[in-house]
Amino acid sequence: MPEFAKRMKNMEKSAAVIAGLFQNGTDPDIISFGIGAPAREALPIDLVREIAADVFTDGKRGAEALQYAKPQGLQDLREVVAEQLLAPKGVPARAEDILIVSGGMECMNLICQVFIDPGDTILVEAPTFVHSVETFDMFQANCAAVETDEDGIVLEDLEEKIRRLHPKMVYVVPTFQNPSGKTLSLERRKRVAELGSQYDVVILEDDPYRDLRYSGEELPPIKSFDRTGHTVLANSFSKIFSPGSRLGYIYAAQDIIQKLLDAKSATNSHAPAISQVLCAEFFKRGYFESHLRRIREIHRERRDVMMECLEKFFPEGTKWVYPDGGLFTWVELPGNINTTELLKEAVAHKVSFVAGEGFFTEGGGKGQNCMRLGFSAVPPEKIRIGMERLGRLIQSKLG
Amino acid sequence: MPEFAKRMKNMEKSAAVIAGLFQNGTDPDIISFGIGAPAREALPIDLVREIAADVFTDGKRGAEALQYAKPQGLQDLREVVAEQLLAPKGVPARAEDILIVSGGMECMNLICQVFIDPGDTILVEAPTFVHSVETFDMFQANCAAVETDEDGIVLEDLEEKIRRLHPKMVYVVPTFQNPSGKTLSLERRKRVAELGSQYDVVILEDDPYRDLRYSGEELPPIKSFDRTGHTVLANSFSKIFSPGSRLGYIYAAQDIIQKLLDAKSATNSHAPAISQVLCAEFFKRGYFESHLRRIREIHRERRDVMMECLEKFFPEGTKWVYPDGGLFTWVELPGNINTTELLKEAVAHKVSFVAGEGFFTEGGGKGQNCMRLGFSAVPPEKIRIGMERLGRLIQSKLG
Repeated sequence: MPEFAKRMKNMEKSAAVIAGLFQNGTDPDIISFGIGAPAREALPIDLVREIAADVFTDGKRGAEALQYAKPQGLQDLREVVAEQLLAPKGVPARAEDILIVSGGMECMNLICQVFIDPGDTILVEAPTFVHSVETFDMFQANCAAVETDEDGIVLEDLEEKIRRLHPKMVYVVPTFQNPSGKTLSLERRKRVAELGSQYDVVILEDDPYRDLRYSGEELPPIKSFDRTGHTVLANSFSKIFSPGSRLGYIYAAQDIIQKLLDAKSATNSHAPAISQVLCAEFFKRGYFESHLRRIREIHRERRDVMMECLEKFFPEGTKWVYPDGGLFTWVELPGNINTTELLKEAVAHKVSFVAGEGFFTEGGGKGQNCMRLGFSAVPPEKIRIGMERLGRLIQSKLG
Repeated sequence: MPEFAKRMKNMEKSAAVIAGLFQNGTDPDIISFGIGAPAREALPIDLVREIAADVFTDGKRGAEALQYAKPQGLQDLREVVAEQLLAPKGVPARAEDILIVSGGMECMNLICQVFIDPGDTILVEAPTFVHSVETFDMFQANCAAVETDEDGIVLEDLEEKIRRLHPKMVYVVPTFQNPSGKTLSLERRKRVAELGSQYDVVILEDDPYRDLRYSGEELPPIKSFDRTGHTVLANSFSKIFSPGSRLGYIYAAQDIIQKLLDAKSATNSHAPAISQVLCAEFFKRGYFESHLRRIREIHRERRDVMMECLEKFFPEGTKWVYPDGGLFTWVELPGNINTTELLKEAVAHKVSFVAGEGFFTEGGGKGQNCMRLGFSAVPPEKIRIGMERLGRLIQSKLG
């Protein structure tokens, strides 16, 4: 057979990590803290049934849902994004500066299409979202890691690496980060935007978890501090409407949007029109606000139960992040426990998680005693059972 | 701002052609033969209403539609493809060798991700589907054109160019080709598959129109003659179910499917689950066969009316393709009429088409007196009006 393209070799490692994530929790008896999906109870099944009944009764709207659409996405969905999602966060966007894409991950893909040549450097957080690294690897970028602390990416290290490595792009998940659950502080948000402008670097702000806040105060996006168009805001409807709809959006300067349109057209023409119509109606009918209240409650309870269980079942010396929102917490175990090894035993004990080392691009043993625990997809009573199982197993390792 | 990636420069020309196609027919008074979409009357709005009502009443199926799915696509949709779409065409496929993608165009994107490095050569038909060329340009491939005649791609020229240019891939739309409406003969199908095996070249068979046949005998896919795994079959649900669902599929050898899975994951995780569930139900409930009969009738009538109008309204010396199916015919005008120039006047006369030269990758004035006429999206009575307008305009040019 003809050889595969070079990029396929380049992405083997991260693709294997991702493939591993998808294996997680296929056995229904395993309580899986490895899943990064919203609660099943948070899916708006009844609302979508009602909306679909109307959409497919209205010949015009039904045809819009089933026919080809334009590459940029439905006008009314882009207006909804501007009015209901961006304006309230201090980002006064125009509908023409928004591109609707086929799920949050596609933001990373399309922005790489537009900006990344093989060999370009992308700065990422340590730890970072491994699925995006898979995309960066496919584009043959060099990922270089920047330190993080409890307030997110460390500015001194970021600036030093921008100066030294001349990256094309900085990739940041500022709110309830995947995998750490950490949130970038207000001051740092401002400064990250400024660094992009100052050093002529694209800041890719990936912010899919921000609306799932359970405590603390809302923070404006990095994009709201951008004065030069260097920050590109990527977001997703997966957590606030439905992952299966495969919808997300990019808000960026008009010259970038124009290039993204070419890339979108050459990738898959346009985002699914069925999903776009259902999602636009969900917002236009005013369902978002009460739905968001409801799903925040569901997930807040799960976060609280998991925090309680960490306290109760995990050994002394364990450190963890208290996430003000999102789907994950990040746990650092005491002793010399290797979580990749631990996972095999955990699965035998019918509980699973994601081992920490896969989230560090630089390797070298970083994160080996860490794990990502996802609380969103597991009902509270099962969180208790699973955390007790996991805590006991860890306790047993410490003798 | 940071520079755009090199590929963006590379795709400027084809992206401009594509952007032009999307402009076509935004004025509702213009009768547009430029559209490459199925008839609005062919969209299964009522069936989808019924299916959606059931899916979103069943909590389990509803959750499946709204939650994350696996990168390869829903098991039952892949089984439907194998049983209802491939087996009847002499292609005994296993569900695990099928990847569900986000619309037919994404097949080209993902196959390029897996096989194409910058500078690789792709052989295409002359004329060829310009939207795919946009994708090939994004991957910085060199497109080289192969001659076609009334039976499709010319084998002698194909073999000569394979020997001389050492392409990585040959791109063929074998059935009711876009833009020409031509169909590759049985013998040539067989031989194209053999050439792929013989010279170790990927044959990308893009076959989205094949089920829309109105006359003549069905022909097996090139893939049915492939004995070595060199042929990759790309198809779409846009013409037989719904373009707005953004669903397509790739059937390929398992080692290629494995690489495509990595590329799919790094592109946009998975195809829209809402669409996948609705589409799987459409086939599982046995609606496909009668729906296909119905939409063939709708489009057959439009084809027949357009053929009749070409005879009646177009000047002597005009040549055109009698398409046995699909959405398009290809017209070659007599005299020295430049169709790109003609289009401007046609729009002023409230009728439009796609000028021929954009479909030839080699440029040099090829196709300047040709046009692609799409009959599928225009009701019969409007085809008559539009074709009379267009015929008169052309007659007036010939004096």
